[in-house]
This record gives sequence, structure tokens and C-alpha cells, in this order.
Amino acid sequence: MSRLDSFINRLTAQRDLLNHILRENLLPSEGAILELGLGNGRTFNHLRELWPDRRIIVFDRAIAAHKSSIPDEKNIVLGEIETTAAGFAGQDAAMVHADIGTGYDDVDARTLRWLPNLTVSLLAPGGIAASGLPLDHPQLAALPLPPGIAPDRYFLYRRNG
Amino acid sequence: MSRLDSFINRLTAQRDLLNHILRENLLPSEGAILELGLGNGRTFNHLRELWPDRRIIVFDRAIAAHKSSIPDEKNIVLGEIETTAAGFAGQDAAMVHADIGTGYDDVDARTLRWLPNLTVSLLAPGGIAASGLPLDHPQLAALPLPPGIAPDRYFLYRRNG
Repeated sequence: MSRLDSFINRLTAQRDLLNHILRENLLPSEGAILELGLGNGRTFNHLRELWPDRRIIVFDRAIAAHKSSIPDEKNIVLGEIETTAAGFAGQDAAMVHADIGTGYDDVDARTLRWLPNLTVSLLAPGGIAASGLPLDHPQLAALPLPPGIAPDRYFLYRRNG
Repeated sequence: MSRLDSFINRLTAQRDLLNHILRENLLPSEGAILELGLGNGRTFNHLRELWPDRRIIVFDRAIAAHKSSIPDEKNIVLGEIETTAAGFAGQDAAMVHADIGTGYDDVDARTLRWLPNLTVSLLAPGGIAASGLPLDHPQLAALPLPPGIAPDRYFLYRRNG
């Protein structure tokens, strides 16, 4: 399987998982959606379509998105995600989505030192986390994936308590 | 349809079209494959898997690829593609692949002023062009797409004469 194949599989899993979260109505009724990593803005654009009435706040080092997919200034937080997103702890987000794997194991291992704790701190009890990297944390309970998503391709959790 | 949906559709079309070119044995038996735009290197990685014995030369402004998908130094040409690739005119490439659309109509219109002519100059007679942007040129004959690829999503041509 080429890296192109893997990328298509991961993006498809991401899209199908987000659609599943909407269809199954998994989000708490209140709270923002936090997108960790804006990138080109394609996923933000998808989130915006799925949840037109939710506040969506995006975090990234810098803006590199297509102009059609840049949030309002008040919903962009620029800087190191680990630091900037921590400022939103305790604000009871409905969902955290993070697709910030790099394909480099050592870099991803460093990310996984802070991402699970950060995610829990951001979410409301009952809030949802969707991630391209596995989030190992006692307060994050894995939820079943919809059919067609391989178990190690994308990850879905609910914050319990 | 979100930009994420469109992106998945385009990448899937690209991958399926490249697989089709291999399966149908459309390439001339000699000549290099030229990849205009390396990007993350995922498509180069796919081309490398499909055609392990062909020379593949990539062109881009700078290297931004994953370390697993960077060609040998002698097969990377850095600089403005319009200029650098022109140096390979007349060398009878078997295939030119270009996925260098930007999603900005004005930028893509400028690219399309030079890309069709450049592509013809690079290809051997009978050589194949696959492109994410349409290449309108009298020496490029559109070839049928495999099932499942929408006609305006990816483009396939053979240089005639």
C-alpha cells in the first residue's frame, strides 16, 4: 500500500467518522467544536457544513488554509497548539478533533505526551474526541467505529466523567 | 459537498487513474515519468510502487515531502516548474503527471497558459499525460477514463504525433 493509498484511507475514515458523529447525534447539545490543526482548512470546511450552528474554534501555528476555509478571526488561535489550546481548558467543548499526526513516529510520540491530557481538559463530560492518533487516557472511553473504518485508522472517544 | 469530500474524490480519481494506466499498459516502453509537483511525496511514492523500474523525475519549488518519499538527488529538479521542466523538452518522457491545481481559479488559469505546451514538449509521441487540470492542446487526445472517475475530476491524454 502506497502512502497515497494510506492517505486516501485516512481522509476517508476521518470524513466518514465525522459524518457518523453527526448522524448518531453523539455531541452534547451545548459547547464548541475545537479543531486542533487547521492545515489547508478542508476538515474545517467539512465541520462547518456538518454543524452550521456550532461555534468552531481552530488552532494552528500559522494560517496556511485556502481562503474559502479560514474561520472568523475570533475563532482562530495561532501558536503552538499544546500551549494555545490549554487556554481553553475547562470551557466544556462538545468535541475535539485532532488530525495532527506527522507520519514521523518520534514526532508523534512527543505529541502523544500532551494530546490526551489536553483533550480531556478541553472536553465537557460526555464530550467527543475524534483523532488520527490514538488517545490513551482513563477518562476517554473508546466508542465503536462505523462500518468500513479499520480500528487503527481513526479513533473515537467519549469523555466519561 | 465539502472541500474535504472534493479532495478525497480528486485523490481517489488520481490514484485510480494511475492504476488504470499501469493495468492497461498505456505507457510507451521507454522513457521517464515526470512528476510536476512533489508536494508531500505521496503520489511519487505511489508512482514508485507502480513503476519500480522507471526513472521518475520530480519537479517542485522546494522539497516539502515526507523523508520516505524524496527521490534521489539526481531525480529532483528544484525551481519554478514552468522553467525547470522546460529543460527536459525533447527527451521523450513516457508520462507526465501534474496535480498542480491550487483551488484558485486565477492562479490555475495562469498555470494553464504554459502547462499544455510544456506537457507536449516533454512527452514522447504516444506518451501519456495525467492531470488534475484539463490540458487543451491539439496534440493531446483525451483517452477514456476508467469507470468511477467523473469526467471533470481528472484528465487523461495521449500525445498524438
